[in-house]
Amino acid sequence: MILARVVGTVVSTQKRPQFEGAKLLLVQPETPQGEAKGTTLLAIDSVGAGVSERVIVVLEGRAAGEALGKKLAPVDAAIVGIVDQLEFVE
Amino acid sequence: MILARVVGTVVSTQKRPQFEGAKLLLVQPETPQGEAKGTTLLAIDSVGAGVSERVIVVLEGRAAGEALGKKLAPVDAAIVGIVDQLEFVE
Amino acid sequence: MILARVVGTVVSTQKRPQFEGAKLLLVQPETPQGEAKGTTLLAIDSVGAGVSERVIVVLEGRAAGEALGKKLAPVDAAIVGIVDQLEFVE
Amino acid sequence: MILARVVGTVVSTQKRPQFEGAKLLLVQPETPQGEAKGTTLLAIDSVGAGVSERVIVVLEGRAAGEALGKKLAPVDAAIVGIVDQLEFVE
Amino acid sequence: MILARVVGTVVSTQKRPQFEGAKLLLVQPETPQGEAKGTTLLAIDSVGAGVSERVIVVLEGRAAGEALGKKLAPVDAAIVGIVDQLEFVE
Repeated sequence: MILARVVGTVVSTQKRPQFEGAKLLLVQPETPQGEAKGTTLLAIDSVGAGVSERVIVVLEGRAAGEALGKKLAPVDAAIVGIVDQLEFVE
Repeated sequence: MILARVVGTVVSTQKRPQFEGAKLLLVQPETPQGEAKGTTLLAIDSVGAGVSERVIVVLEGRAAGEALGKKLAPVDAAIVGIVDQLEFVE
Repeated sequence: MILARVVGTVVSTQKRPQFEGAKLLLVQPETPQGEAKGTTLLAIDSVGAGVSERVIVVLEGRAAGEALGKKLAPVDAAIVGIVDQLEFVE
Repeated sequence: MILARVVGTVVSTQKRPQFEGAKLLLVQPETPQGEAKGTTLLAIDSVGAGVSERVIVVLEGRAAGEALGKKLAPVDAAIVGIVDQLEFVE
Repeated sequence: MILARVVGTVVSTQKRPQFEGAKLLLVQPETPQGEAKGTTLLAIDSVGAGVSERVIVVLEGRAAGEALGKKLAPVDAAIVGIVDQLEFVE
């Protein structure tokens, strides 16, 4: 899983039917210190995350489909937790 | 999933039989701001996307096969939505 | 699998139910010589690893779910071993 | 999938039995314009590709195993099409 | 699959039980010309490879588990062949 911050939302009407009702969020991967690092991704939200929150993102289709509650859904990333606290020892 | 723009098409006649009838598009990954970033990929289209449209691409074989409607198809990327609107908070 | 060092912990209360009871650790990928390299990741601990220990991390959902003992868990990385000894021939 | 060019062959006698009879080719990922980009990979050929041909490579174990006709084969990349024509709009 | 060279061994006593008896080798990805490129990885050996040998490494959990002979093992990389001969056309 990776640390990321929710940085936006995406609306798509012409899409695969399994996405109906799914919340699609833009997430920016971050270092433990909170610096943006790497490419912005699209993830299915499964825990009620909102813009600017720090989250845990799982990057894998099977796992993301599980988070969406649709095992066969065509997804590859999902927000699976909101970060409350992070302890980092450099 | 990633944001990308459709930038071309590919024709292949000598190919795996499961690709018959599948539309294969060249997609260029993009940042939320619309700048090209990373390597151009080939994705199966499952939503009727056309050249120059901004799309959502899923990167995973199981998910892509699902989008193609052939679970065992030898694919690893599929266009699963067309982006209508994107809100990005930096 | 990759070599990594445990560099912290993450607490998340709003999360997928399958994470209940799972220990989520921050791991920093390392070279065989022990230099940090690449992005810090979040991994499920399945072997009792602690901060500052050198570990083996598996990067794949199916494998990580297996390590967690929940095949359908939405995870993509797990600590599967603690490194006792490493012989490196450059 | 990615665009690549076949740049060589590899012979291995001490190998997993499922590789018996499989043609293993070196493929160099390319941009749509035909420039080499990224690391040379090894892919199973499933469409009769030859050295110097431009091909479509699928990067995923399940999909590659399907291309090889052995679902449980230990492979992660396969050539699934030969490129006849490519239209690229920058 | 990728080309790599075996550059070391790793010993781990506190590990997932499925690793019992598995030989865990450090492998350095290489270009066809034999130059090191990219991050050193840990791979399960399934073909009797030794330090300094040039090998073929499969990078995927399902495939690696197959190579280990334990489909559900928490592994993501395996040595599946020893390179005897390589022909490379630049």
